[in-house]
Amino acid sequence: MENCHYCGDLNRTGMLFETRYHNVLVADEQSYLGRCVIALKRHAESLSDLTEEEQLDFFKIVKTLEGAIKKSFGADMFNLTSMMNSSYKEDPPNPHVHWHLRPRYDHDVEFAGVTFSDPDFGKHYDRTRKNQIDELVIKQIAEEIRKYLG
Amino acid sequence: MENCHYCGDLNRTGMLFETRYHNVLVADEQSYLGRCVIALKRHAESLSDLTEEEQLDFFKIVKTLEGAIKKSFGADMFNLTSMMNSSYKEDPPNPHVHWHLRPRYDHDVEFAGVTFSDPDFGKHYDRTRKNQIDELVIKQIAEEIRKYLG
Repeated sequence: MENCHYCGDLNRTGMLFETRYHNVLVADEQSYLGRCVIALKRHAESLSDLTEEEQLDFFKIVKTLEGAIKKSFGADMFNLTSMMNSSYKEDPPNPHVHWHLRPRYDHDVEFAGVTFSDPDFGKHYDRTRKNQIDELVIKQIAEEIRKYLG
Repeated sequence: MENCHYCGDLNRTGMLFETRYHNVLVADEQSYLGRCVIALKRHAESLSDLTEEEQLDFFKIVKTLEGAIKKSFGADMFNLTSMMNSSYKEDPPNPHVHWHLRPRYDHDVEFAGVTFSDPDFGKHYDRTRKNQIDELVIKQIAEEIRKYLG
């Protein structure tokens, strides 16, 4: 699909793994250490369009990621969201199914020389708190998670 | 499970339907018209714990709700989230898998004598904007959605 962020060339810096149906990447924005994006490979516009194979694949990825990020960084729990709001700023809208997984922590974590905090643990994530870290650190986060993907 | 909001007696005012694995309710807070909660019936603590039957049932519900809420109120798209943050304010935490479905609108909707707006359409939902409407209106919203559940 033309002009679709997820159909174009993905920034593969944070690439973790792919399945038959999804690409799984460490997000550029790491205010929540280990934040990932799970993006459907084909262009589907809403969750209602997913096939049963894609649905099961998605939940398998969530389980894999939750397990790996707990082991990598000691995450306590996870927020999972499917939003696609910004696609509706365009006319016509051009949504592409993807999910955001935000690990949440009741403690600070030091990794790759950076301190990652979650001052709002137990509450909704804070989108105003940004952590655009170095590409090298994104790669290190991906490497660390990859150790535990099994 | 003791002291679990979702294992206790649910407030059935907004009850829409139940499946073998989930209860589906119109939420008390309607800043986004047709906002629903999809709650797993059994007490499971994380998305990693869901069985394949539960996973497929969940996506079937999402499809049913998205279709019905589009027909009922003309929703343009949907935000879906699994958070469970507030369970982690307790010690020990006592999360129970549930999801929030927020319909989003690029236009105002008049229903049951109330004007429902979505001033942030195309952006993240705004949790500071609350709409605690009358129980009678919750029931009317549920009735309207139920017409289109098929």
